[in-house]
Amino acid sequence: MGQAVGEAAVRAGLELIPYSFCSSKDSKTKSQIDVGGISVELVGPGQDRDNLIKTLQSQYPNMITVDYTVPDVIHDMVDMYIKHGMPFVMGTTGGDRNRISKEVIESGVYAVIAPNMGKQIVAFQATMETMASNFPGAFSGYTLKVMESHQSSKKDTSGTAKAVVQSFQGLGLNFDVSQIQLIRQPPEQVNVMKVPESALLGHAFHTYQLLSPDGTVTFEFQHNVVGRSTYAEGTVDACLFLAQQVQERAPKTLYNMVDVLRAGAMR
Amino acid sequence: MGQAVGEAAVRAGLELIPYSFCSSKDSKTKSQIDVGGISVELVGPGQDRDNLIKTLQSQYPNMITVDYTVPDVIHDMVDMYIKHGMPFVMGTTGGDRNRISKEVIESGVYAVIAPNMGKQIVAFQATMETMASNFPGAFSGYTLKVMESHQSSKKDTSGTAKAVVQSFQGLGLNFDVSQIQLIRQPPEQVNVMKVPESALLGHAFHTYQLLSPDGTVTFEFQHNVVGRSTYAEGTVDACLFLAQQVQERAPKTLYNMVDVLRAGAMR
Repeated sequence: MGQAVGEAAVRAGLELIPYSFCSSKDSKTKSQIDVGGISVELVGPGQDRDNLIKTLQSQYPNMITVDYTVPDVIHDMVDMYIKHGMPFVMGTTGGDRNRISKEVIESGVYAVIAPNMGKQIVAFQATMETMASNFPGAFSGYTLKVMESHQSSKKDTSGTAKAVVQSFQGLGLNFDVSQIQLIRQPPEQVNVMKVPESALLGHAFHTYQLLSPDGTVTFEFQHNVVGRSTYAEGTVDACLFLAQQVQERAPKTLYNMVDVLRAGAMR
Repeated sequence: MGQAVGEAAVRAGLELIPYSFCSSKDSKTKSQIDVGGISVELVGPGQDRDNLIKTLQSQYPNMITVDYTVPDVIHDMVDMYIKHGMPFVMGTTGGDRNRISKEVIESGVYAVIAPNMGKQIVAFQATMETMASNFPGAFSGYTLKVMESHQSSKKDTSGTAKAVVQSFQGLGLNFDVSQIQLIRQPPEQVNVMKVPESALLGHAFHTYQLLSPDGTVTFEFQHNVVGRSTYAEGTVDACLFLAQQVQERAPKTLYNMVDVLRAGAMR
């Protein structure tokens, strides 16, 4: 994912600082990777890394770090951001989220942390939440059908679908997350969900169907993503947003994607 | 439409007062109609009607009048509601809306006035408005395709589609209401929009498709209505809401369907 973000950053005209902070395991396996034609050096933990960070901070005072690190080392990475006062954008769901939030706020390090960086998906999800709080019970008596399709290796239910279903519950729909239909078989993905064959190994398709008690009214909402570019683009948006907060010395330091979205069209 | 509302009111367990206030033309053509097995008397303008209203007001102190009158006589009807202090629910788009609003507010008569009484549709429309104001430009660069299908006799573009498109503009989509595709031919309605054949003479189907610049993300929203029952049910909800405001002597007197929805699940 880091690679896709690097490429999106270059596309957005940002300067990519050619270092990637990784686990000691990763830095031992490989010394560098290619990101959109730029050779990026992998740097594991240690005194050398601390020195490098200090050098980069003086060379690039507006540096923002993007973190899609594996869950195992997330807390170590957060410790590093705090130690050096490095603003960071983290797009992963691993680690102890409450602990990270607390540490970030207490240290005053600037960060955007979000489980989903696809800004339109986040906007849809937040909007359904708002709909439920504005119009409680507006869909009372309706029945709901939810289908979500992801690559067959994904075992658990989509977190986005679960969050949206929670909003539908607020709208009066009697529906439990266990009723969400997980589509994991390619034939069904192609025929029912209309996933392109080329996206069978990486996609996130969601369909929500609502039907009135007398069958005369139907609503359907779909959000379908193939590949990773939307998450990468959203991450770059989060970087631009965070850089602005740092520059303006905003009093708040911990943000999520809804904050990024509320800030409006940035590019 | 009045008939469908009467039937919905009876279904909701409300008492239907067996009089319908109509134009003098209508009351001369017919003297009574059947509403869900109840014989309802048509009463045109005049001294007799004024006397009848006074009698009904003393007999039924919680009386709410529902108005789906033809546009020609709307202002006469509003004059009548004001003269007698009759709370009313008006589901029509005719007349001079600003004038009516002003008169209602100045007179202190309680009213719900809305161009669309389908509460879930209204909730969706209001939610898209909120999305645009919360997340300006979130769909910047996306392309939009809007199709709306109604019975072939409807000549103009759907007002709901136009309102939703306005919200999409706020979300950053470059789209003009003139680009909305009006589907009025039955073969296309059946094959493209999936309108049931039985609903070709009365339906309101809307599809909004959003596509990201690189083609990797699609959103689709649909709201499809056949028949009139959802509008009738929403009208009864508005009546229940208005009765409550009257009973509580609420300081505000003029409401719309968003107010009804915000009040939450009423049944």
